[in-house]
Amino acid sequence: MLLPEQVKIVEVGPRDGLQNESQILATADKVALIEKLSLTGLRYIEATSFVAKKWIPQLGDAEEVMSAIKRTSGVTYSALVPNWAGFERSLLVHTDEIAVFTAASDAFTQKNINCSIDECFERFAPILTAAKEKNIRVRGYVSCALGCPYAGEIAPLAVARVAKRLYDMGCYEISLGDTIGVGTVNKVNAMLHAVMQVLPTEAIAVHFHDTYGQALINIYAALQLGVQVIDSAVAGLGGCPYAKGASGNVATEDVLYALHGLGIETGIDLKKIIQVAHFISDKLGKPPQSKVTRAWGV
Amino acid sequence: MLLPEQVKIVEVGPRDGLQNESQILATADKVALIEKLSLTGLRYIEATSFVAKKWIPQLGDAEEVMSAIKRTSGVTYSALVPNWAGFERSLLVHTDEIAVFTAASDAFTQKNINCSIDECFERFAPILTAAKEKNIRVRGYVSCALGCPYAGEIAPLAVARVAKRLYDMGCYEISLGDTIGVGTVNKVNAMLHAVMQVLPTEAIAVHFHDTYGQALINIYAALQLGVQVIDSAVAGLGGCPYAKGASGNVATEDVLYALHGLGIETGIDLKKIIQVAHFISDKLGKPPQSKVTRAWGV
Repeated sequence: MLLPEQVKIVEVGPRDGLQNESQILATADKVALIEKLSLTGLRYIEATSFVAKKWIPQLGDAEEVMSAIKRTSGVTYSALVPNWAGFERSLLVHTDEIAVFTAASDAFTQKNINCSIDECFERFAPILTAAKEKNIRVRGYVSCALGCPYAGEIAPLAVARVAKRLYDMGCYEISLGDTIGVGTVNKVNAMLHAVMQVLPTEAIAVHFHDTYGQALINIYAALQLGVQVIDSAVAGLGGCPYAKGASGNVATEDVLYALHGLGIETGIDLKKIIQVAHFISDKLGKPPQSKVTRAWGV
Repeated sequence: MLLPEQVKIVEVGPRDGLQNESQILATADKVALIEKLSLTGLRYIEATSFVAKKWIPQLGDAEEVMSAIKRTSGVTYSALVPNWAGFERSLLVHTDEIAVFTAASDAFTQKNINCSIDECFERFAPILTAAKEKNIRVRGYVSCALGCPYAGEIAPLAVARVAKRLYDMGCYEISLGDTIGVGTVNKVNAMLHAVMQVLPTEAIAVHFHDTYGQALINIYAALQLGVQVIDSAVAGLGGCPYAKGASGNVATEDVLYALHGLGIETGIDLKKIIQVAHFISDKLGKPPQSKVTRAWGV
């Protein structure tokens, strides 16, 4: 069994996490969150989304956040751009990298962003062309990689097809998301085997939500297949709009505890992440969703 | 990678779970809990502990519980016996099997039950002899198999030594407990490798607390080594007296979700277990600690 020696953590708390929290944080708190995360050893932070404020008011201050953060050298600050308007906004405030978002399920993209998967790609095409000209790297998200709240089971080949299309279009890394957290190890293996037929392993990231408590066991399965990039959110920020009372992204702290226990290097200081988890949980007025942080104490 | 085709779940919620809950449930509620668990497909339920009431008031009604439960054929109802007096009590109320308890750490047994590991074995000896004569099977617990709240790191060989001693004395199954939930995959592998040098794999059970959220990933590591017996507690009952705000035993629901997802048979109906989880959580007036149960809804 060959595990990777190093793993890159993509911290998605400020974007995917806060986007799914019911409260709207003050801009200054978001800036403080990102700045604190920058000092933990994290090298990659998805800071916000240039989505229309009316759709996601939680992230309505994307420009302000990106402009205000004091940047740490060596850290990439990225943002999601849902469309051309978002891409143009991102250009004005020095966004290091961008990410585009689609799904392996037409039912999901229709309900979620009101277009088919094909139409997603039509929206992306000019963005990817322009990003390439400007030397801006683009990350691609594939939602519903292990199940869809509307369509149910998703075929591994459907995931592979969308992942390859994003990769062929120019995305350097494809993040495969278990959006509703229903995945189990066998499904992870089947899905990753399909994607690995068409993508180099280095280009694959996994993005688990811990809705059913399966995130870490699924991550272990992915590591055993050689995956080296894991998305996670400090304090397990976020929730799941498709399951009441369910938890959000897998917590960065819990992932680090597992990875460091496996002897895998991340370059990240777990204790500092725990401090950030307490900071943001206090701001949101709710307990951290990370078991490591709850057990560790302050 | 060879995973077992079937796994035996040992439901420890009524004992290890309730023992660590702050509230004392009514006897009738405990009886209802055990009877409901009996109808889920579970074959093995640790129902109570014949410990002195002054030490663990939560389980002060062991005789009443064991006498009152309506038994389901094919289900084994066991109980912990801490000493000879407890063993004698267990005999009067038709306890199918008993379990004895020690640790891989002298510091822990001293603080916890006021004796050394050697003295534990002196207490057990007459119990095991008498149990054998009466054809009562005995299970053995080894606490602190992956770390001790007082002594810190525990050597795998120390765990193997205690496990072998219990086995040689007549225990048919040895449950290796991560009492404080600090274990990680590499530690699980090292500990199990040591124990497997001296015990047949079929005699090994793993008992994880989910304090740091690592229970399922550790269980997957154990399964990959061939372990076929897993302890768990419905609704993740219990807490951790050594870490404030930490969670208890790994939840039976979360284990079942993972095992069934791996195609491993348990014979247990997950939906029925979720119903029992809601029942007992309502009685305790707290949310279920299982992510599966919280996500699934009622």
